[in-house]
Amino acid sequence: MRLLVEQGLPGLLVVGPAGQPFAMLPASDVVRTLVPGYIQEDPVLAAVIDEPHADRLCRALAGRTLADRLPTARPFLPAAAPDRTAMELAELMARTRSPLIAIVERDAGGPGRLLGVVTAAHLLERLLQA
Amino acid sequence: MRLLVEQGLPGLLVVGPAGQPFAMLPASDVVRTLVPGYIQEDPVLAAVIDEPHADRLCRALAGRTLADRLPTARPFLPAAAPDRTAMELAELMARTRSPLIAIVERDAGGPGRLLGVVTAAHLLERLLQA
Repeated sequence: MRLLVEQGLPGLLVVGPAGQPFAMLPASDVVRTLVPGYIQEDPVLAAVIDEPHADRLCRALAGRTLADRLPTARPFLPAAAPDRTAMELAELMARTRSPLIAIVERDAGGPGRLLGVVTAAHLLERLLQA
Repeated sequence: MRLLVEQGLPGLLVVGPAGQPFAMLPASDVVRTLVPGYIQEDPVLAAVIDEPHADRLCRALAGRTLADRLPTARPFLPAAAPDRTAMELAELMARTRSPLIAIVERDAGGPGRLLGVVTAAHLLERLLQA
């Protein structure tokens, strides 16, 4: 979360032990990890959590890892090979409504090595230079 | 788009003529405005648009306004009154998967005046300070 705040990132790309891309978490999904399950189920309860209590909830996160908080279902991972065009990346970003696209080496044997990340701001910057 | 690129914003809040908030466009939706309709309908066509052609598509946007590109249906506008707690904003951001929340004055007569915008990074920063 500090990485996201300090660098003003639109989301995080989570990688596995061998550096392979695993999941993309938009910033709003990172915020979700701070919202207790009972509030996600019944949003009106958010109003009864006062600020000191919310602070305690956040302190309880110290030492917790992303792996503790990732969804257990199939992770969301918008990815493209490095030979894709700017228009292909724009189409994928628009369709998945993702603020990040992972650029991943082509590898027939599973998820390839992560080469980089393209944000919406990167892509717009490139397209505006045209 | 330059505003989004130069300030590294996660999205844009579009306001109406009297300054009242109208719609929130995540950066990925701003990218969508660069993707021609025929590619949105048939994504494989993105591969056949070469880079010089993509550049021409972007030059064609010069002088176009956001109003030209906004969805005509009911716009997406995640908004909260200024007396909401950090936990209420976090719950709203997580539920709507929005990178921005508009803070809007309470006004029984329609959409109230825009007071500010809270990003996911702002909210995480506040919660991490606890």
